Amino acid sequence: MIVRVGLLGAGNVGAATIRLLHEHAEDIEQRAGCRIEVVRVAVRDPDRTRDLPIVPELLTGDAGAVVRGDDVDVVAELIGGTEPARSLILEALANGKHVVTANKELLSTQGRELFDAAEAAGAALQFEGAVAGGVPVIRPLKESLAGERVSRVLGIVNGTTNYVLTRMTEEGMSFHDALAVAIGHGYAEADPTADIEGYDAAAKCAILASIAFNTRVVAGDVFREGIGGVSVEDIEFAGRLGYVVKLLAVAELDHDEVAARVHPAMVPKHHPLAAVREAYNAVFVEGPNVGQLMLYGPGAGGAATATAVVGDLVDVARNVATGGRAVGCTCYADRAIRPMEATATQYYLLLAVADRPGVLAQVAGAFGDHGVSIKSVWQEGTGDDALLVLITHRANEGAVQRTLAALRSLEAVLEVRSVMRVAGEE
Amino acid sequence: MIVRVGLLGAGNVGAATIRLLHEHAEDIEQRAGCRIEVVRVAVRDPDRTRDLPIVPELLTGDAGAVVRGDDVDVVAELIGGTEPARSLILEALANGKHVVTANKELLSTQGRELFDAAEAAGAALQFEGAVAGGVPVIRPLKESLAGERVSRVLGIVNGTTNYVLTRMTEEGMSFHDALAVAIGHGYAEADPTADIEGYDAAAKCAILASIAFNTRVVAGDVFREGIGGVSVEDIEFAGRLGYVVKLLAVAELDHDEVAARVHPAMVPKHHPLAAVREAYNAVFVEGPNVGQLMLYGPGAGGAATATAVVGDLVDVARNVATGGRAVGCTCYADRAIRPMEATATQYYLLLAVADRPGVLAQVAGAFGDHGVSIKSVWQEGTGDDALLVLITHRANEGAVQRTLAALRSLEAVLEVRSVMRVAGEE
Repeated sequence: MIVRVGLLGAGNVGAATIRLLHEHAEDIEQRAGCRIEVVRVAVRDPDRTRDLPIVPELLTGDAGAVVRGDDVDVVAELIGGTEPARSLILEALANGKHVVTANKELLSTQGRELFDAAEAAGAALQFEGAVAGGVPVIRPLKESLAGERVSRVLGIVNGTTNYVLTRMTEEGMSFHDALAVAIGHGYAEADPTADIEGYDAAAKCAILASIAFNTRVVAGDVFREGIGGVSVEDIEFAGRLGYVVKLLAVAELDHDEVAARVHPAMVPKHHPLAAVREAYNAVFVEGPNVGQLMLYGPGAGGAATATAVVGDLVDVARNVATGGRAVGCTCYADRAIRPMEATATQYYLLLAVADRPGVLAQVAGAFGDHGVSIKSVWQEGTGDDALLVLITHRANEGAVQRTLAALRSLEAVLEVRSVMRVAGEE
Repeated sequence: MIVRVGLLGAGNVGAATIRLLHEHAEDIEQRAGCRIEVVRVAVRDPDRTRDLPIVPELLTGDAGAVVRGDDVDVVAELIGGTEPARSLILEALANGKHVVTANKELLSTQGRELFDAAEAAGAALQFEGAVAGGVPVIRPLKESLAGERVSRVLGIVNGTTNYVLTRMTEEGMSFHDALAVAIGHGYAEADPTADIEGYDAAAKCAILASIAFNTRVVAGDVFREGIGGVSVEDIEFAGRLGYVVKLLAVAELDHDEVAARVHPAMVPKHHPLAAVREAYNAVFVEGPNVGQLMLYGPGAGGAATATAVVGDLVDVARNVATGGRAVGCTCYADRAIRPMEATATQYYLLLAVADRPGVLAQVAGAFGDHGVSIKSVWQEGTGDDALLVLITHRANEGAVQRTLAALRSLEAVLEVRSVMRVAGEE
């Protein structure tokens, strides 16, 4: 038996997918229980010469012919972005094709529409490549942990920002210098906004939260703060306090409400996520039975992401061959999304203060008035350079924001120099 | 639809499995697409009172009734050991039952017989819990990485030895003191031989090698060396040279031959495996496309392992409900097993030597004569306490053993104080 694949896109991931299917054809046939054959590849310019192990006749400029073709069983959408990817996937599903995609942007905004269409068509919609590139994350969460009630997911899911933060931490570079290095080495795009501002991580956070908690979470539900405001001073203070700064995607279940957010956070140095350096990704999962799990690996790169796409294709092909059915949409619950101000976490604050008796009492009073409990406080410097460094216990976001407003109104507080959340500790 | 499970054993893992199936019944029904019901539980003493969420009438002393029962669709074998587990699994399969097991000992010795029986019966045989407890390892390797050709697997797959080595590393304890602490804290059994001598890790290494390289590797194929010979001195030298000592399971594919071994090894401090502390497990996977992946988490514990068992039960139940077929035995290749003496790795050597001119030349000559290339060498101490510390480049095991024999015959070499392999570097 042969399962026929039509590809949309032959960029980094698409080209690597074609190469893997070709180079590992024998192994893949054994693993899928059937042959997988690429029968059409839609590209923008079909006449361009490409170094691909397929006959040039398979290239077409007509994506519609791929999603409608009678000779296509599975469509792999690897063009990214919302349109025309969305319309093409919907058309493929409407035509009874199974779909494999790595499109985080689309899944995190139009997931419901796509999964409803797949369900209606009785077709598979697989997307292991959408989060953390080549790291198996979706399948372990959906299938291996089907017996667990996951309580929290902490992810380093954007390689660009992790690379920038690694340079800032290990070489003491400023954010702008580290970003320039990242762009120079190809770890960041010329316009790095989507990565730096956390949009990419927020899309992945929405997908992770949806799967972990069986509730549809869209990108717009995710609180988002990028790394542009992280200073060398923050990273130095973090280091002295025993933390490393990471851009985290946090998805939590608490009292049957789901919270999802992306922001820079201080992570204890002994935490497994602290050891995730360079452009690597990791997804850390907590649950009452499994304790703490971490899935670590390359978060991007055509070849790595292509292994995830091919893993999905093998799964779909095996099901086509044996008459089985892939795990479909798992958003069967309809839990409420908790607004950011109602979430709780630990906070680090750096305050420039007047250096005179009674200041600490005033500052501590502002915290106490809003029910925020201080875990540790430490004064640094004297006179005009006096700084207070505070770490709170787990506290309500809204209460901390009100505390900050109160601190800013204190004459003795010259400046709230930095505020950062702390994760992975309490 | 209801899928009916019969359990063999209600020890730590069995009891936790029953609890998970009960507590998460609604989620599991959504995830499996059918209800999963425990209908029989075979235990040694069915009259003993147990704190389990099942009616006592389900307990039976007759394991045969479970594997033959007309009311059982899936048998979960959680008694461990080779017999009667083997006979019961074979009988269950012969009766058309699917089987889920966490029995590494049995799989690593009788795997072929069991998978042949499952294949003949058209039944599933799943075993995620057999390696690294609650960490998803088998499914990611078999399914998520179906498009990759894995080149190497490095695993910390025994929690007891990792706990002992962590105490030796972090508190400078001797092996015997650390082992006593491990036994006191319940991290080691009263008779810790299977863990300390590497038998447990070798069984898991055989399973990992079989899956990674699609070739049947049995426990007897795995070279095995335990941690009893690791000294505080070794760990101190390792630390000064930038390494951490771990008991590693290594499975490699080279020129279409499979090598599998378990031994203490020095791992570079910056390697992700170096951060795996206490009783945690991790499986580190390398491949040309995916680069480096790591799956990390609790390697033991009833609840954690039970999440793996329930994950397998959900998979089997979904296939029963939808008519699909689980991935079966993936040992379709028949690669040769490379004998230990033909493998290659890096080595650390600690030699007590006479402190006089010309000794280094003699020592270096012994390496050169056997084609072993020295990466770095360093003298420590003088006079009667003179030590030579050497790290080799990747070298053939047989050649290193011949070098060691030659070194021992040199008058200037007073003692070969320590030899340890180095992993994760070249």
